[in-house]
Amino acid sequence: MEILGYFVDLDETMHTIKDKGYKTVALQIPEGLKGSTSKIVEFIEKETTCTAIILADPCFGACDIANYELKNLGVEFVIQIGHTPIPNLENILIPTTFVNALSSREVAQAVEKSIPLLDGTRIGIVTTAQHLHTLDDVEKILQKHNLEPIISDGDGRISNKGQILGCNFSAGLNIVDEVDSFLFIGSGNFHPVGLLLSSKKPVIVADPYTNSVKKQELEDLKDTILRQRYGAIANSQNAKKFGIFIGMKKGQQRVKLAHKIKEMLDSVNKKSLLIAMENFSPTSLQGFRDIDCFISTSCPRIAIDDYLQYKTPILTPAELEIVLGKRKWEDYIFDQIS
Amino acid sequence: MEILGYFVDLDETMHTIKDKGYKTVALQIPEGLKGSTSKIVEFIEKETTCTAIILADPCFGACDIANYELKNLGVEFVIQIGHTPIPNLENILIPTTFVNALSSREVAQAVEKSIPLLDGTRIGIVTTAQHLHTLDDVEKILQKHNLEPIISDGDGRISNKGQILGCNFSAGLNIVDEVDSFLFIGSGNFHPVGLLLSSKKPVIVADPYTNSVKKQELEDLKDTILRQRYGAIANSQNAKKFGIFIGMKKGQQRVKLAHKIKEMLDSVNKKSLLIAMENFSPTSLQGFRDIDCFISTSCPRIAIDDYLQYKTPILTPAELEIVLGKRKWEDYIFDQIS
Repeated sequence: MEILGYFVDLDETMHTIKDKGYKTVALQIPEGLKGSTSKIVEFIEKETTCTAIILADPCFGACDIANYELKNLGVEFVIQIGHTPIPNLENILIPTTFVNALSSREVAQAVEKSIPLLDGTRIGIVTTAQHLHTLDDVEKILQKHNLEPIISDGDGRISNKGQILGCNFSAGLNIVDEVDSFLFIGSGNFHPVGLLLSSKKPVIVADPYTNSVKKQELEDLKDTILRQRYGAIANSQNAKKFGIFIGMKKGQQRVKLAHKIKEMLDSVNKKSLLIAMENFSPTSLQGFRDIDCFISTSCPRIAIDDYLQYKTPILTPAELEIVLGKRKWEDYIFDQIS
Repeated sequence: MEILGYFVDLDETMHTIKDKGYKTVALQIPEGLKGSTSKIVEFIEKETTCTAIILADPCFGACDIANYELKNLGVEFVIQIGHTPIPNLENILIPTTFVNALSSREVAQAVEKSIPLLDGTRIGIVTTAQHLHTLDDVEKILQKHNLEPIISDGDGRISNKGQILGCNFSAGLNIVDEVDSFLFIGSGNFHPVGLLLSSKKPVIVADPYTNSVKKQELEDLKDTILRQRYGAIANSQNAKKFGIFIGMKKGQQRVKLAHKIKEMLDSVNKKSLLIAMENFSPTSLQGFRDIDCFISTSCPRIAIDDYLQYKTPILTPAELEIVLGKRKWEDYIFDQIS
């Protein structure tokens, strides 16, 4: 079905519901498509005999799987719309299916515009779930201009060739030594600036929503972020008490890493607390007045993107290593979940 | 141990941790005590050999039990501080203990001040978890003034005599026909205005934190709330599409009631969606642009206390009955979870 400019194919999911005889299913819908919730529920309840319960808490990715807590609600099956699965997630109690929302925007115009901005001839192509179906077209346009497009698989967290997540750029990094620059298909700065920071290769954005391209804006944002990170690290040099975040969302749990960080802090006689949280917010943290510095093992973007929201510095694990003198600033790496 | 004016007795909990050999425990701490988190963790880690993980998401009551999702974090035992247990909650996967935080404030001065405001001679005494240990003293002061104090058990949701929750006033309502007025020991309007709205008997507040008393202020607040509720009901008369909230917090789940409301709406040809949520907020609801009216089967206070935050009316189940002509405004009841 067509929803607000996206194609969402629910046919296979309807077959599954009928085959398995599910009576109650739960729906996770990204914020941008919530306005069409009724349309989706009506479709499901027309095609099957099940009742659909909408899960209204924001869902920003496949890392955020609603699960255990739905048992009491009688939910037998979860349908998450707008995301592709994270293959290496374990312990999913309730069967969950992911139905991608494919943008109907044509990419040709934006990609043509990007050609003069691309560095070199070997171009790594990456995108988000919404534009995966356009990669063949992008490849052809580049070839027409005598460029060599390269599209790679990611690691175990990535389910499609050429796909990047806000926390995982492996489909780009796997080919970083083979390409001269990257072409990112999509909108916003969230994904491409992550790739730029982690790959250190030029990244050009072709945005099919606005038919515009950008490169310098991303470089400027990278510089701003690096200045902020340098500042956060500097502000944490004299921290006495640390708080180590553990994400409770299923795909954001790095419990072993959190314990490893605690041991590292113990070994240099720094006090630390393990702090688990479902929803990170300045409000939830304001009670911890005696913590001088937080380290996040949860979503890597909490430290980076929400920088200005928090009064106390939040570092990534690699940034803590710099604070503790175990890593040089020159060896700065962008945090990822692999 | 003494924390910010509260006495928290962790001795029994330490015995349990040692007896059972728990290696990892989780801590839920109310917002007001979060500033002392380190002190509590240091105590636990000194007394036992376990690691304590703090759960930082706000926890407003025993209805909000962290559970299933902690399995992956290796948590074997949950300690919730500042609340008393809700006896009739089922399906608690990880053993959970509740450690009350008892206020060190003396109540005598505030109770003495309340005497002239009390209506009649038969006085129902109610309070919150923090002041339960003062009820004997309150009783004696009332008797000294030739009044007849009455303290009652609540229903299956209430673990102590004389205790009320924001969603349950049974310890007051069980004796509503035997008393002339109620004396509430505690601070804030949240609990006493709920009792006033549900009992329709005078409620006098004796606040041990400020040593002040109030009665008229509560009556005024009751009138404001009733006007708001009348407005919300009036604004929902022409609603075409309804959203029925189901709370995901363990003690806020009224799934059967939600399905019953859906059936009721179906029977009068009104469209409705079942919407489950962990954290209710205007942000999470703003996507549902086509919903004209929400009905909350979750925490009864969402509709009442957060009234001004939401643009779309949120009704309690009884208020929906008024909208649908199945209940008269004169028979208005305050929503409770029993």
